[in-house]
Amino acid sequence: MNGSQIPAPALGRVLDQLAHDEAAALERLFRLLAIPSVSTDPAHHEACIEAAECCAEALSEIGFDARVEPTLGKPMVVGHWRAKVRERAPLRVLFYGHYDVQPPDPLEEWSAPPFDPRLAEDPRYGTIIVARGASDDKGQLMTFIEACRAWLNEHGELPVDVSVLIEGEEESGSPSLAPFLAAHGEELKADIALVCDTGQWDADTPAITAFLRGLAFSEVTITGPSRDLHSGLYGGPACNPLRVLAEILAALHDDQGRIAIPGFYDDVRQPLPSELAAWRALGFDEAGFLGGIGLSEPAGETGFSVLEQLWSRPTAEINGIVGGYGGPGTKTVIPAHATAKLSFRLVPGQSPRRILDGLHRFVENLLPADASASFKGDGGSPAVGFDTQAPAFRAASRALEAEWGKPPIIVGCGASIPIVESFRSRLDMDALLVGFALDDDRIHSPNEKYNLRSFKKGARSWARILAELGAIDVSAT
Amino acid sequence: MNGSQIPAPALGRVLDQLAHDEAAALERLFRLLAIPSVSTDPAHHEACIEAAECCAEALSEIGFDARVEPTLGKPMVVGHWRAKVRERAPLRVLFYGHYDVQPPDPLEEWSAPPFDPRLAEDPRYGTIIVARGASDDKGQLMTFIEACRAWLNEHGELPVDVSVLIEGEEESGSPSLAPFLAAHGEELKADIALVCDTGQWDADTPAITAFLRGLAFSEVTITGPSRDLHSGLYGGPACNPLRVLAEILAALHDDQGRIAIPGFYDDVRQPLPSELAAWRALGFDEAGFLGGIGLSEPAGETGFSVLEQLWSRPTAEINGIVGGYGGPGTKTVIPAHATAKLSFRLVPGQSPRRILDGLHRFVENLLPADASASFKGDGGSPAVGFDTQAPAFRAASRALEAEWGKPPIIVGCGASIPIVESFRSRLDMDALLVGFALDDDRIHSPNEKYNLRSFKKGARSWARILAELGAIDVSAT
Repeated sequence: MNGSQIPAPALGRVLDQLAHDEAAALERLFRLLAIPSVSTDPAHHEACIEAAECCAEALSEIGFDARVEPTLGKPMVVGHWRAKVRERAPLRVLFYGHYDVQPPDPLEEWSAPPFDPRLAEDPRYGTIIVARGASDDKGQLMTFIEACRAWLNEHGELPVDVSVLIEGEEESGSPSLAPFLAAHGEELKADIALVCDTGQWDADTPAITAFLRGLAFSEVTITGPSRDLHSGLYGGPACNPLRVLAEILAALHDDQGRIAIPGFYDDVRQPLPSELAAWRALGFDEAGFLGGIGLSEPAGETGFSVLEQLWSRPTAEINGIVGGYGGPGTKTVIPAHATAKLSFRLVPGQSPRRILDGLHRFVENLLPADASASFKGDGGSPAVGFDTQAPAFRAASRALEAEWGKPPIIVGCGASIPIVESFRSRLDMDALLVGFALDDDRIHSPNEKYNLRSFKKGARSWARILAELGAIDVSAT
Repeated sequence: MNGSQIPAPALGRVLDQLAHDEAAALERLFRLLAIPSVSTDPAHHEACIEAAECCAEALSEIGFDARVEPTLGKPMVVGHWRAKVRERAPLRVLFYGHYDVQPPDPLEEWSAPPFDPRLAEDPRYGTIIVARGASDDKGQLMTFIEACRAWLNEHGELPVDVSVLIEGEEESGSPSLAPFLAAHGEELKADIALVCDTGQWDADTPAITAFLRGLAFSEVTITGPSRDLHSGLYGGPACNPLRVLAEILAALHDDQGRIAIPGFYDDVRQPLPSELAAWRALGFDEAGFLGGIGLSEPAGETGFSVLEQLWSRPTAEINGIVGGYGGPGTKTVIPAHATAKLSFRLVPGQSPRRILDGLHRFVENLLPADASASFKGDGGSPAVGFDTQAPAFRAASRALEAEWGKPPIIVGCGASIPIVESFRSRLDMDALLVGFALDDDRIHSPNEKYNLRSFKKGARSWARILAELGAIDVSAT
């Protein structure tokens, strides 16, 4: 047997094996979910290492040559499986996932501890898996590993050569990724990357994500007086950094929801009329999307649909403000400093560096006397888009249609997956973005969940995608 | 001996006794400073009770009839000393202080633990006492108790009848004060209140504070989506409460530094031309005042001097903002809620209730679609001013001049002491505000200090004031 000649019954046995192994698969996922691998918080550094080891063990166990590779930040998990004998050059894929998760706070809004994974019953979806990382990205990455496990258990082989890269800094800007790809690019380079960090169109309709917004972070700190002041003894004459910060943040958008940083939209590439027409044809349920999060009106730029606001328009969001007294009760203080954490979602054409430079100038220009600004964070990644007619995209499309009974919808995604841009710019490698998350998985929020059905059918989908990828004639592409 | 017939040598012996007892007095102060009685934080409730007991013991020890009286919040300390025999009706004073302190955060900016009091050497002031509460108000209130101790040790009597009220909620809005004064007004009513929670003009010049700004608090919470959201998956169409809050906070002031809440200035009473002239005559060092806190330009309303901005103009200050992710690193979240802690300093004529009502309307009017606002805090106290020609004021003035070699300056204070307004409105009692704090005592800030000289000369000043008050002919006033 080799990659291009897998008979249909071979896939059938893999799908049967997945069904047979379901309970054990869930146990393996729970083991990973129980590790509080919050990469952004130094207190959880050891947990990140533990999660990396857990992933590497899972790969080794099923026959991958796997290892945990240290970085200056969180370690990388790298694994390879290569066919010993092939009739011709096989397709090679690089699967990417991340074992780190977002901080679970606000903790009090979880109905159960975030790192104590459990099954629950959802009135809409039936059984769901609840834990931080259930969907983003531990549940998703395990769908792929379980698919590989079933193939290897059943046939001792995978239909294509597979490398796996699981990072631990996706939720904190991936600072180690660029140096790691620079050092290990040769080892990791494949024909295409498989990235399982995206979602479906809806619970019954698969999707392939063909464009992603980029991302730039900045932490802006305004400093006023040389120390915290009593707001009675100094209030009035003393510059209050919280007020300065509020004024700057308020100025970020105009009354049409447009970002007011000069030049911010200069490099924005508009979607093609055909793309816009395709989006309109999707019949996206704006009211349902907004209603699901307790909202009724799109808050983005006037004149753009919700899908356009999400897929083709950049944003400037305040992700957090820290300044003054935040504890219970009151404190009559004028703080010396106030900080805002900002992130910008970027669309094709925009450069993170230019956007941050523009932000810095914008802030500096708005500073009143006695206030100064400092900035942290120069990371970022531009937006990306892919050719959806490439063979691997069409192969995945066939596999998803076979599993779900309808073809996948080609979508954009408002979120950023910096690795996708890095694969393209550093390894000249496109990515196939297939995932089984749903919009209401509450990723980054309390009570994050992954439908048990997403987990099961996700693994089945990957088993099928591997088969279809194995059927691609590499010499012809 | 009675209150009206204290011979000068009697006072001299009290001052000698203070000098003799200096080391023990400092030990007693340190014992109180070591108790972390942060009233605004429920975690320190027990410490507040301990501080109350410490104060009551100090009073009992020197002969007061003292007790700790529970309230729904932090307990009150009440103590009385009455002359057994008097030739005629003595003046009766009520001394007020507070044993609670501000939260010590940011802790990392303290050079030593805030509740581990210590002496340090200051290049400008010599020996200083460093601890949270060293100046505000434990150090100050102990100057009075030490003065009483010396009088009682030396003569077995005080020149006037003295009641003491020490509360534990001054730094958290004094919620228990009104019901306590309602229940114990008869017991506490005196001819005048002595309040030691203010400062000197400078290190060598005493001051009597004759007007105080009022205060109103509000905590404004903006709610947008029904849960925290991923800023990539929802950024753009989703209403961000942090942005809504920033826009509302930025709108609080116009570009002249005036507060933009409609009607905010309607009831403001302007100072008299004579008062303004007296302030100008003080030769206040604006550059020095601002330079001491790292600033160079007054940030208050255009067209008013620093003293006017502090003493006669109301303010709206942001004391804290809490919303979104505040930990290390980044989190791409759009939070469901964002909160600002606001306080308003009020001047004579303004009603805290009307100001808060105006704020609420102002915020409601600025809410965009899908955002809602809720408000906490309806406490507050109006501004107050006193007749500086009353006998007790003149008596205190003579005493301070004797101790410091120059007459006290009559000043205003930008801060609020709600008790002063309560004494006036509930007990029809004026207050004599004398304190020995300095502008650079860093009250409410890290590394709070009280000069050792302030502590010593403060006690001596009170010893003299008690003597002068004893000389007032009560029947004539």
